Parts: sequence; structure tokens; C-alpha cells
Amino acid sequence: MLKRAVPKIVDHDARRTELATALWRVVLRDGIEHASVRTVAAEAGWSAGALRHYFATQDELLAFAMNLVAERIRARAYGLPDVGTPCDRVLTILEQMLPMDAERRAETAVWFVFTARAQADRSLRRLRSRFDGELAEAIRSLVEQMVEVGLVRSTVDIGVETDRLRALVDGLALHGLTHPGTMTAERMRRTLAAHLDSLAP
Amino acid sequence: MLKRAVPKIVDHDARRTELATALWRVVLRDGIEHASVRTVAAEAGWSAGALRHYFATQDELLAFAMNLVAERIRARAYGLPDVGTPCDRVLTILEQMLPMDAERRAETAVWFVFTARAQADRSLRRLRSRFDGELAEAIRSLVEQMVEVGLVRSTVDIGVETDRLRALVDGLALHGLTHPGTMTAERMRRTLAAHLDSLAP
Repeated sequence: MLKRAVPKIVDHDARRTELATALWRVVLRDGIEHASVRTVAAEAGWSAGALRHYFATQDELLAFAMNLVAERIRARAYGLPDVGTPCDRVLTILEQMLPMDAERRAETAVWFVFTARAQADRSLRRLRSRFDGELAEAIRSLVEQMVEVGLVRSTVDIGVETDRLRALVDGLALHGLTHPGTMTAERMRRTLAAHLDSLAP
Repeated sequence: MLKRAVPKIVDHDARRTELATALWRVVLRDGIEHASVRTVAAEAGWSAGALRHYFATQDELLAFAMNLVAERIRARAYGLPDVGTPCDRVLTILEQMLPMDAERRAETAVWFVFTARAQADRSLRRLRSRFDGELAEAIRSLVEQMVEVGLVRSTVDIGVETDRLRALVDGLALHGLTHPGTMTAERMRRTLAAHLDSLAP
């Protein structure tokens, strides 16, 4: 009884990271559609009960996975080495959002399943709106910076170019995910590069 | 027994059209996610058994719905009046693929659900590849015609511009579907128009 009365000291950040790592192993190996409270608990070596503290339902798991994907993209984009031309650097930042290797393909799959589920679920839709808002802001800031450093004509409409670049990135992500055999990393890169090139002064 | 032995003469084309009309009423009123063999049969006033001749499962219903969407887009695109500038006409053709009103929003929703399900289903994936191939061909042909009539610079790479326009259209369709409140018809139109404008000689 005494044991129960003393609260366990749990490092939630460390446990969250441990869980995220296990979730990502399942997603990468089996696909997001096979990630469940049960399979992730097994992968982490936790009881399903312990895991339910972090997510109790399939939708909460999906929200957790989507948060993880956003963190991963952010960490890579901010962690890029400061090499190459400014145009190369913009291209590399945008490429972090595209399914160009197994890791990013798994991320795009999470994004897509999350988007599909959010159509039917109000709380996922709220979370999705937040992500989309952040992404739109990031792309707008990128376009503004491109104008500032002279990569993009100063006469462009920032709002229109933000919408156009966002649509292009998401369209390419969708095609790369659904047609990995034909919409290759090289082809996505070429399309993006042509787009940036078309905006040059 | 005699009755059974005599095959009923059924006009399958007429019945198919009747069924498609009922399916579309359900999709438009309740959403593709609420269309099922049962609800569509009820809407058509058919028995579920009669309907199963056309589709027996949820996936077959989805394939039927996707075929219907492709037919609808094709019929509208080919049926457009020959008015306005060539650029206006290209814009109007492309707008047939975007969720710009309730009918097209329902079509985009079918496309999206179909794409999501096709990720997990081999036979839907085959059908999706066929649609995507047809769409890619249509967009390529549009780009080629734009070059021919002088709407697009003759120096562009047709393959790259086809990929770019396809990604843009699908990205806009996705954003229009998921954010109808902010990605309005007017905003989609403006984005597309800016894109065509950027390709002009």
C-alpha cells in the first residue's frame, strides 16, 4: 500500500522520446496503417496501460505521430548546414517535406493518413489546421527571404507565390507517395528547382 | 420456374446511369464516407441484391464512384463552350478538376478517399494508376497545345511543366478540400491564373 501512495517519479520527456522512437520504428518498418496502441506498446516493451498515458486511441496515436513528423521536419530544416548557394539551401529546406527517402516517405504517409482521418474527425482537424497554419507561415517566410536576398523577383505577389509553392510541394508529396516508381526523388527535385528558377529575377 | 428460366432483358446502360445518379445524390448530400451498398440501394429504390450486380463491396462502390467522377470531369471539360481567350479556356478546363462548388467538392472528396484507400488496396491502386496516367496525358496535351498557340514559351521543358502543373492542380485540390473556408474558389483561380501567366512568352 505504501508503494502505491508514493508517486513514481517519471521523466515524461525521456519516456515520450522512448515512445516516439518505438512508434517511428513501427511506422518505418510496417507503415502507419499498422501502428496501433498494441503494436507500439509491444515495440517499446511497455504495457498497453503505460502507453495509454500518452495516447489512448488510434486517433490520439495518429496525432502523436503527426506531431513527431512535424518535429522531425523542423529539426532537419533548422539543422541544415550553411553550405551551397542560397537557392540550393532553399531547395534543401523544401526537400525536407518531400518523400525522397524511406524516412521521409514514412513521414509523408503519416501526413496523408492524418489528413484523410482529419476529414472525418473534428479534433484531428483542429490539429491539422494548426500544422497547416505553421507550414503556410514557414513557406511565406521562405518566399519573403527569397525576395530579400534577390532569389525571387521583388515584383511577385507574396501571397500568390506562397499559395503556389505550398500547392506545388503538397502536390509533389502526394505524387511521390502514390507513385514512388515514377515520381522519383530526382524528378521531384527537378520540378522544385524549375519552379524556383522560374521565380528568379 | 419458367419465369426463372427466361432471362430478364435489362438495359444495363440505363440501369447503370440510374444507379450513378442515386450514388451521386448520396455522395452530394451525405458525403462519400456515408455511401454504402445499403444507402445507395435505398436511394435508388433497389434491393441490395440488384445493386450488387454493379458493385458488391465498399471498394467496388468507391471504384464505381471514381469512374463516375472521371466521366463527369471529362464530360464538362469536353463540353465547355468555345468562348473567351485561349488562356481563359485553359483556366476553365483546369478548374473542372478543382473543388470550386458543391458538385466539384464532392468529386474531390471521392478522389481523395479513393486515393487514400488505394494506398492499401492493390486493385484500387491499379485503377488509380490508370486515372492518373490519363490525367497526366491530358495535362501534357494541354501544355503542348498552350505552347502551340503561343500561350506558353516554346523554350519550356514539356515534361517539367506537365509535372509542375499536375502537382499544382492536385495540391490546390487538396487545400481546397481540407480548407474550404480559406482556400476559396477565387483563391484557387487566382493561383492557377498566376501560374499560367508565369509561363507566357
